Amino acid sequence: MADPSPLPPGSTIGILGGGQLGRMLALAAAPLGLRCHVFCPGEDAPAFDVCFARTRARYDDEAALAAFARGCDAVTYEFENIPSASLDVIENAVPVRPGRRSLEVSADRLIEKAFVSSLGIAVAPHAAVDDPDGLEEAIELLGLPAILKTRRLGYDGHGQIAIARAEDASAALESLGGAPSILEAVVAFEREVSVVAARGLDGAFAAHDVTENRHEGGILRTSQVPAELDASLAERAIDAARRIAEALDHVGVLAVEFFVAAGGELIVNEIAPRVHNSGHWTIDTGTTSQFENHMRAVAGWPLGDGSRRADARMENLLGPDAERWNEIASEPGARLHLYGKRDARPGRKMGHVTRVLGRP
Amino acid sequence: MADPSPLPPGSTIGILGGGQLGRMLALAAAPLGLRCHVFCPGEDAPAFDVCFARTRARYDDEAALAAFARGCDAVTYEFENIPSASLDVIENAVPVRPGRRSLEVSADRLIEKAFVSSLGIAVAPHAAVDDPDGLEEAIELLGLPAILKTRRLGYDGHGQIAIARAEDASAALESLGGAPSILEAVVAFEREVSVVAARGLDGAFAAHDVTENRHEGGILRTSQVPAELDASLAERAIDAARRIAEALDHVGVLAVEFFVAAGGELIVNEIAPRVHNSGHWTIDTGTTSQFENHMRAVAGWPLGDGSRRADARMENLLGPDAERWNEIASEPGARLHLYGKRDARPGRKMGHVTRVLGRP
Repeated sequence: MADPSPLPPGSTIGILGGGQLGRMLALAAAPLGLRCHVFCPGEDAPAFDVCFARTRARYDDEAALAAFARGCDAVTYEFENIPSASLDVIENAVPVRPGRRSLEVSADRLIEKAFVSSLGIAVAPHAAVDDPDGLEEAIELLGLPAILKTRRLGYDGHGQIAIARAEDASAALESLGGAPSILEAVVAFEREVSVVAARGLDGAFAAHDVTENRHEGGILRTSQVPAELDASLAERAIDAARRIAEALDHVGVLAVEFFVAAGGELIVNEIAPRVHNSGHWTIDTGTTSQFENHMRAVAGWPLGDGSRRADARMENLLGPDAERWNEIASEPGARLHLYGKRDARPGRKMGHVTRVLGRP
Repeated sequence: MADPSPLPPGSTIGILGGGQLGRMLALAAAPLGLRCHVFCPGEDAPAFDVCFARTRARYDDEAALAAFARGCDAVTYEFENIPSASLDVIENAVPVRPGRRSLEVSADRLIEKAFVSSLGIAVAPHAAVDDPDGLEEAIELLGLPAILKTRRLGYDGHGQIAIARAEDASAALESLGGAPSILEAVVAFEREVSVVAARGLDGAFAAHDVTENRHEGGILRTSQVPAELDASLAERAIDAARRIAEALDHVGVLAVEFFVAAGGELIVNEIAPRVHNSGHWTIDTGTTSQFENHMRAVAGWPLGDGSRRADARMENLLGPDAERWNEIASEPGARLHLYGKRDARPGRKMGHVTRVLGRP
């Protein structure tokens, strides 16, 4: 059993990763009186602007990780691809929350799908692909079109490629560098939704309202709450997230992305063992934000209420979208969130805006 | 005329003072993409935990101030007693917002009262006191009981003492170190209210709803919004704040504290040219927080809406009150804000809690 005694105000929470998620975690930790130490290899990491302490080092720099861990009372992270040896070094000094099981399962698409299936929750039809022969067999099994995805290290549409015709298969595998992959059948879905929820050190569970998401080119564009979903389906989605969190003995926020197929079938697309882009609206219209609830869980505090105070629609500001900051700042009911990034590369998440829509 | 072009995201705002106000300003600046550089002599300054850059130096260290100012695009402050020579050094490099006039008027109780009176707005009966003879004359003029206050450097009940009997007068003056002072008549008031409002670089004005305040021992204990005030009186209070802000050519947030006397007379007690304890509820139930609107004004951005999304009651956590953090964190509808201070001296502002009461 994890130690259930909470870390008091004045404790230091380490965050692996200094992007916008780490930044918003640090901003949420401050009102709880928790200090953040951000560990990130990047020079201008967004989270460095708002934290108590910074370590700029590589994620495999074991001396830097050990020194970082010694200065923290618990360590969390904003991304799931943390080297296992790095976790060993940190766990030698201090608890890592969420724990290893959450990371091991979510870092590998094949393991994740097997885990979700084992709970009796549907996933997309898929097959492991280790080489060209395996890909050929997978195509025979699943048919085309299908999507080839690396098992590890994918995000925002990176590490995946659609295969429409059999003759494109080998080029697709090559474009992913021949990495261990899975082929996934294309699911005919009516909508994409997600559940962002926190699980406490004591096993308490607090889900935010189900969010409806729209992606473009593999990147989330908008999230709207509530999702257009009947109540029983929303309850089933939240229940699936709860069972996943419990089976992982998860501590912190996790996000479960679902496809909703015709007839109301829920198919888990992906698990993220962390705060999630589709939960950003909670900063502005959640009773508690996902970032605060993650920090509460990591510190062993009681969780805040997952309900919402108003309906909302979150829009990501990608690349040059963020140049509209002045216009958005002038718009009534629009809440601007910029991440402090300098280089506005096309498709890069520079910020988001939450538009408050009305009361639930 | 001040330059009306806004400072873009990525700009650095300097903050003189690293207490809880500086901390909450820095937390509000981040979502706007503005970086904060905090200048403070203290070692464990609360704002140091959440800012991009820190300078630890005395407020009269001109070399440190000059280096600080050169790294900023604008400078603001969380307290009004900034040495004039220090302002000279900073203004040599970069705009200071709010400007000199706001500081000069609010840093001296006598000048402040003369200024407010000159706008046709009532203040408490008062007289200047420079020495024992002056005090005797002031007592003859105003009667007793009355309150002797230093003209400069007072806060949270410091620098003031009540005089009940003539024979206590000389001891009272001595207890204030013989500093230039004023004697103020005790105003018989029904309630204390405040207006916290922002004025933009372009002259726009956005007031938060009038707040009702309760003090104990000179220290604010609770603020409740809305104040129990009829609508025309609330409008008059906001109008007085607007006229004060305009006459100061104020840029940023300012707070005006009023006594409401029987019959609805509004008497200005004090002006603060900065974010204010009685506006802390705006973080949780304001459409825009006072901290965000201050940063918007300082950066020359459009102001956010001053309205509220819900009624609220803010309670300061003084000294050992903050030990109740776990209980407050478990309370539905309570929003905890701790300031990261280590030493919980009696009466010290360690944090606050905002309880969301309902919808306006």
